[in-house]
Amino acid sequence: MRLSRREFSKLGALGLASRVLPAIGQDGQRKVGYCVIGLGRIADHFMRGVKQGSTSHITGLVSGHRDKAERIAAQYGVPASSIYSYEDMDRMKDNKAIDAVYVALPNSMHAEYTIRSAKAGKHVLCEKPMCVSVSEAEAMIAACKAANVKLMIAYRLHYEPITLKTIQMIRDGALGTVQAIDSANGFNIAHGEWRTTKALAGGGPLMDVGIYSLNAARYLTAEEPVGFTAVVSTIDHDGRFDEVEENTAWTMRFPSGALASCSTTYGGSMPGYYKVFGSKGWLEVGSFGYEGLRLRANFSVGGKGTASMVIDETNPERDPKQFERQADHFTECILQNKTPRTPGEEGLRDMQYMREIYRAAGSVRSKL
Amino acid sequence: MRLSRREFSKLGALGLASRVLPAIGQDGQRKVGYCVIGLGRIADHFMRGVKQGSTSHITGLVSGHRDKAERIAAQYGVPASSIYSYEDMDRMKDNKAIDAVYVALPNSMHAEYTIRSAKAGKHVLCEKPMCVSVSEAEAMIAACKAANVKLMIAYRLHYEPITLKTIQMIRDGALGTVQAIDSANGFNIAHGEWRTTKALAGGGPLMDVGIYSLNAARYLTAEEPVGFTAVVSTIDHDGRFDEVEENTAWTMRFPSGALASCSTTYGGSMPGYYKVFGSKGWLEVGSFGYEGLRLRANFSVGGKGTASMVIDETNPERDPKQFERQADHFTECILQNKTPRTPGEEGLRDMQYMREIYRAAGSVRSKL
Repeated sequence: MRLSRREFSKLGALGLASRVLPAIGQDGQRKVGYCVIGLGRIADHFMRGVKQGSTSHITGLVSGHRDKAERIAAQYGVPASSIYSYEDMDRMKDNKAIDAVYVALPNSMHAEYTIRSAKAGKHVLCEKPMCVSVSEAEAMIAACKAANVKLMIAYRLHYEPITLKTIQMIRDGALGTVQAIDSANGFNIAHGEWRTTKALAGGGPLMDVGIYSLNAARYLTAEEPVGFTAVVSTIDHDGRFDEVEENTAWTMRFPSGALASCSTTYGGSMPGYYKVFGSKGWLEVGSFGYEGLRLRANFSVGGKGTASMVIDETNPERDPKQFERQADHFTECILQNKTPRTPGEEGLRDMQYMREIYRAAGSVRSKL
Repeated sequence: MRLSRREFSKLGALGLASRVLPAIGQDGQRKVGYCVIGLGRIADHFMRGVKQGSTSHITGLVSGHRDKAERIAAQYGVPASSIYSYEDMDRMKDNKAIDAVYVALPNSMHAEYTIRSAKAGKHVLCEKPMCVSVSEAEAMIAACKAANVKLMIAYRLHYEPITLKTIQMIRDGALGTVQAIDSANGFNIAHGEWRTTKALAGGGPLMDVGIYSLNAARYLTAEEPVGFTAVVSTIDHDGRFDEVEENTAWTMRFPSGALASCSTTYGGSMPGYYKVFGSKGWLEVGSFGYEGLRLRANFSVGGKGTASMVIDETNPERDPKQFERQADHFTECILQNKTPRTPGEEGLRDMQYMREIYRAAGSVRSKL
């Protein structure tokens, strides 16, 4: 439903807009309503991002903690009737205010809640990693297709300006031929995080944060990797790594011959970054975080011995802007019936490559 | 021969010091005389380093270009009788002014000229990579041992202050448990360099510049790697890479479980660096170059949530200071009969690990 600004003003004058009609954004577009499934840390970023934006709003919550959900519902103007438990969330199929869900649960629950949401007729924005196995990813894509709902994986950096500028620079040939990419991303994990429970996480830091390096190597080269080597290790025997590995280092070979060299850890301070090395120069982006991405680059413009271009640019936008941009994109896809730039198939590919990386490391991961 | 400052002054007063006695350094130590074998770019850095220092001097040259050698001899005060050709350099055994040689030839010639120099009774400072095969490295060590001369491999960063500070910080536990190391080093090679001729270089960028990352991972961890994965590729079919590979990415696993993730190229701009990720923080050193090494670090001091230490420090010394320090060390070892900090065995280990990396990559390298 789309209203012109004049129609919207008329309804407003009649005092009807907010009561009988769906919420309307600044541009006269209907706002898309999101039900957030799982109310952890990343859900908080998402909800704040949606609230600060103008295209979407929070219209439902799914949580195992009714008290917490009611507190958050009050904050975002969600009616009590739109708070669901994990058991009864399928009832949301009758809730017209909910267009889409945002799945922000532990990895192992992504598949189940994506599929149940699709069956309830809701579009699905699902956090990464998409799930914990290739077959689950395939089932999620099939379920959304069968239900005729959209599926987007929350690769928020695909919507972040510094990342987009970096990709464009490489596509435009600023670095010449890309030879190699280095990337790392990791952190020192606390005791008791669900991420160290294999049944919830599906794997170690590769699944959780290493996926940023994997995905970056793909969007930077615009190629799909065809060869993998990998090694895993666990150093700290302090109870955190009884079920998942602590460290992974891996390489990827792309069809062009470009090589990526990546590492991830749950045992150390490892600020995310990638470096791209090309025949005409290099670039580096620091952080895969929620804000402050910084691009530095140095490459020759023109022939040998001619001038160099030096770039040092930081995205000044603050958290939760990345989440706002991501929600805006999915909302636009829903309203205009477009395929998201990071659909289920994008998540599926990363699941396939992570399976290859684990296989290369000789690590036994029965679910993948 | 060691003179006290008083004895030296007396000789000086008699006008004898410079004519009948070996050169004497500022501290009254006899200056050690070096014969430089191969007068390429790195030899120039070495000779300038020796000249600006006070412990050593250039007393012989070996070159295939007599004109060039005579020009350089004039610059460094080397008598014409101490200029040798590759064919007759063995005559230097009778030249008392030559204590040691500096082997600055293409990699494949390191073994032959090290062994011939040892047989001539001269100590040997040999550039890295030490040679082109493990068996050559073993033969070089054996020859120097048999001749009772010292063998040092020119790992100049082992004598560079920022590198030494970095190593000390890690040993002191500033970063906590080291989990991972990322490193890269490479450059876009010109057409016609001897480095792209396999018979001279022995291999591609791994042998020439990747060795910095390999060696760094070893001095940073103080461990010897026990597991390797690797991949090689060639993208540019422009005549430069008919004999050696263009790119290599590899991982190394150390006994503690620390993982290194490294890459090298001859096809792109790849400024050298390493990053070390530990449980308490990280550090990064930019450049493996002849000057300007910069250390940045960020780590917690004390328990969780307490203050962080931030370091950003650049070595202000200019080229050829690293070469001066390196020569000073070998000279000290010669005068005081000490084993160099980077003896032949250090070079041998890197040869063994490069063999493992090539084997892991499935690359056929018959000489290793």
